[in-house]
Amino acid sequence: MSAPSPASLHTFLAHCRTLLGDGHVLTLADEMAPFLTDWRGRFTGSALAVLRPATVEQVADTVRACARWRVPVVPQGGKTGLVLGGVPDASGTAVVLSLARLNRVRAVDPLNRTMTVDAGCVLQAIQQEAAAHDCLFPLSLAAEGSCTIGGNLSTNAGGTAVLRYGNTRELCLGLEVVTPRGEIWDGLRGLRKDNTGYDLRDLYIGAEGTLGVITGAVLKLYPRPKAGITALAALPSPAAALRLLALMQGHCGASLTGFELMSSFCLGLVARQFPGLPRPFEGGHAAHAQYVLMELSSSESEAHAVGLLERAMGEALEQGVVEDAVVAKSVAQSQGLWRLREHIPLAQAKAGKNIKHDISLPVSSIPAFIEQTAPLLERAFPGCQLVCFGHMGDGNLHFNVAPPEHVPHEEFLANQAEVNRVVHDSVARFDGSISAEHGIGALKRDELLRYKSPLEMNLMRAIKDALDPLGIMNPGKIL
Amino acid sequence: MSAPSPASLHTFLAHCRTLLGDGHVLTLADEMAPFLTDWRGRFTGSALAVLRPATVEQVADTVRACARWRVPVVPQGGKTGLVLGGVPDASGTAVVLSLARLNRVRAVDPLNRTMTVDAGCVLQAIQQEAAAHDCLFPLSLAAEGSCTIGGNLSTNAGGTAVLRYGNTRELCLGLEVVTPRGEIWDGLRGLRKDNTGYDLRDLYIGAEGTLGVITGAVLKLYPRPKAGITALAALPSPAAALRLLALMQGHCGASLTGFELMSSFCLGLVARQFPGLPRPFEGGHAAHAQYVLMELSSSESEAHAVGLLERAMGEALEQGVVEDAVVAKSVAQSQGLWRLREHIPLAQAKAGKNIKHDISLPVSSIPAFIEQTAPLLERAFPGCQLVCFGHMGDGNLHFNVAPPEHVPHEEFLANQAEVNRVVHDSVARFDGSISAEHGIGALKRDELLRYKSPLEMNLMRAIKDALDPLGIMNPGKIL
Repeated sequence: MSAPSPASLHTFLAHCRTLLGDGHVLTLADEMAPFLTDWRGRFTGSALAVLRPATVEQVADTVRACARWRVPVVPQGGKTGLVLGGVPDASGTAVVLSLARLNRVRAVDPLNRTMTVDAGCVLQAIQQEAAAHDCLFPLSLAAEGSCTIGGNLSTNAGGTAVLRYGNTRELCLGLEVVTPRGEIWDGLRGLRKDNTGYDLRDLYIGAEGTLGVITGAVLKLYPRPKAGITALAALPSPAAALRLLALMQGHCGASLTGFELMSSFCLGLVARQFPGLPRPFEGGHAAHAQYVLMELSSSESEAHAVGLLERAMGEALEQGVVEDAVVAKSVAQSQGLWRLREHIPLAQAKAGKNIKHDISLPVSSIPAFIEQTAPLLERAFPGCQLVCFGHMGDGNLHFNVAPPEHVPHEEFLANQAEVNRVVHDSVARFDGSISAEHGIGALKRDELLRYKSPLEMNLMRAIKDALDPLGIMNPGKIL
Repeated sequence: MSAPSPASLHTFLAHCRTLLGDGHVLTLADEMAPFLTDWRGRFTGSALAVLRPATVEQVADTVRACARWRVPVVPQGGKTGLVLGGVPDASGTAVVLSLARLNRVRAVDPLNRTMTVDAGCVLQAIQQEAAAHDCLFPLSLAAEGSCTIGGNLSTNAGGTAVLRYGNTRELCLGLEVVTPRGEIWDGLRGLRKDNTGYDLRDLYIGAEGTLGVITGAVLKLYPRPKAGITALAALPSPAAALRLLALMQGHCGASLTGFELMSSFCLGLVARQFPGLPRPFEGGHAAHAQYVLMELSSSESEAHAVGLLERAMGEALEQGVVEDAVVAKSVAQSQGLWRLREHIPLAQAKAGKNIKHDISLPVSSIPAFIEQTAPLLERAFPGCQLVCFGHMGDGNLHFNVAPPEHVPHEEFLANQAEVNRVVHDSVARFDGSISAEHGIGALKRDELLRYKSPLEMNLMRAIKDALDPLGIMNPGKIL
């Protein structure tokens, strides 16, 4: 794509002002700054302008202008992504297309169990709207107060309820997308079954804005569970956690809605950094190797959930799969247990930066993966500390590597590429994925090239070229 | 695509014989006949040859030869499709590529709850293999004794368990596909989360063999429910059935695994054609307008399932949503109730051909759709009889139209195009789909063109051209 001339860019921006109004075409550095730096503050890009359309038609008009003037488009939601997918590169040639002003809930159909929303709706607002109709929208993740559903869809976000309800892809029935030509594809269907041609919906979901701009969606709702119960189990090993998962799923079926693994080191880190949080087990955290946080939901009653959990945990204790367990006796205690899990990333941040991996594996391979990968890291970086936790029920580990004690964090970060290599090579040996729920963005492009087959890259490039022949959609992301 | 010369076709067939062995390149009319006629016996195509590879490599070699000699390829599984997707057209220029010899279960991983299979495995064999590992593969449909998983995937088959477990798309984690160039894409991943680029898997699923040949898949397994219970409820109207669905889902959550609507006319038809089957309600079938067959599954116990059903049905009777209900007291009684549902298509066939529609709607629109469409049909074809039944929980109706009494079936079939028009126009007004679970194939191509937007057709054609630039994969299907 040849760069447009300064004079033509001037005309382009004037055209955008006509389309959106002066106040929604930001070009001053101060105005643009909040849109250019990523969530973790690791990268600041540059942009020609930040455009803030308010309607789907304005999005289409804007993208049509970008196509005409050959201006790259970076769609942006809540900007909470972790792989630099929603911020522009340093060239300053692209516009940021913020979807924040498209934030209406368009319709709720409780009997069809669907909600139709604008892409810029904040996830938490959608959860609340569902609850107001006595329904559940199950997508739930740490950034839910800021992230938007358009971003969740574009990255196929995961979160804590995937075990029962699936990823964002499984929670979406229909989409509205502005194509790179500025056409509006109305795929806002609220159907559970529809076999009429290629699955465009799932192609746009997870494409991280490289094939078009998601502007609206039909989301799936579920009946709200009547009760939930939380338990924390202490176990001797990841292998025991795998046995516990099978046992719980056999007993509880779809009632098991969460199964989070946390190493002893993780809970120790949380206890050191946040001494005010509960310590569920006496004798400290060194006593057991692993912990599993479990959530059960019942469509019937609290007594049903308690009964289910008691029977399953009774068997687990009897079989020696679990060494100890605490069950939350109140909503407050349940929240206290979840806070332990949620504070792991915060405790890491307080302790200093580490090298993060968002990987997935066949669930059955998790024990062997940990067992084989930890010594490889120890050999390469003696004394390094593993912060291993994650959504074990989905095979998704956050397998982070912190420096040895007394080694400065910044110094250790220089090893990022080699640490990635050890971890991702091991992931590849187990037929896992180097990005379970965060996506590729700009951050993991080189890793993708390394681990995907040339054929799969070619198939993806063929699709990209077919749907975005000018190459204006979020260039430099994924491919 | 220009047609190859006879001499070059002779060389092509000789090459295929070298690849597959003489016995697996069928060219005699008698040998080819079983591969050329569709399941319902409505259409017989013609082929250059029937090719029967035994391995993925042989499939790839064969497709590479087809690409080289520009020979169209029609992939074929169990040939139970209902839209002529797996049989060749009348031109005689294509080869049928039968996947029947690729029928190995490659691996079962009970702790990852996955099974890796060849595309030619018969669905029932997969169900049995899952059961042998104390797991459930939930896909279930009438043709399960003959259909193959490759066909199920290529058509994104639905069936009777979609309400709980989703369509075939939701039951597949990974794919192996031979591309139209004869390359083997190894996407056989057994991961619950994998956000590394475009969703090629879901693009091939439901593409009806027009983008490549599915040769293998990683399927999701579930814990086997410990108990199931079946009930049949009599209701005054489709609106009452909608209320019952909401009530049952609220009470039972994921335990509600089946919810099938059948009109009084359907059960009357079954009773007339199969007088030996049970008649669950005294006083005959004319007394109530609608019937709902419900299946509950419990991961706990039979007592749990019974308790759930009793509480929910108690409330439904109290609220007047349900007029009467019978609950199966044994496995035999349960099978008896399901036989009523399963015999509707057989009763139709015995009564004579009718005009079939496989439609889906937002679940909440089903009562209004039936209420508005039935009079339109009556006005256009006075006395015509509606055979309306289907997977109501998924919004999927088989909305078939039989001739008025004393009008010969063959004579009435001449109205097919007009009947389709009335029904499909009404579906479009309700934002429904003209093919819920059967696909498009060759049969519904014109209907697809009529009801899809030109933009969506263009997007699909762009993908087709990008992935199959020679246009050799199952030409004349879908697009």
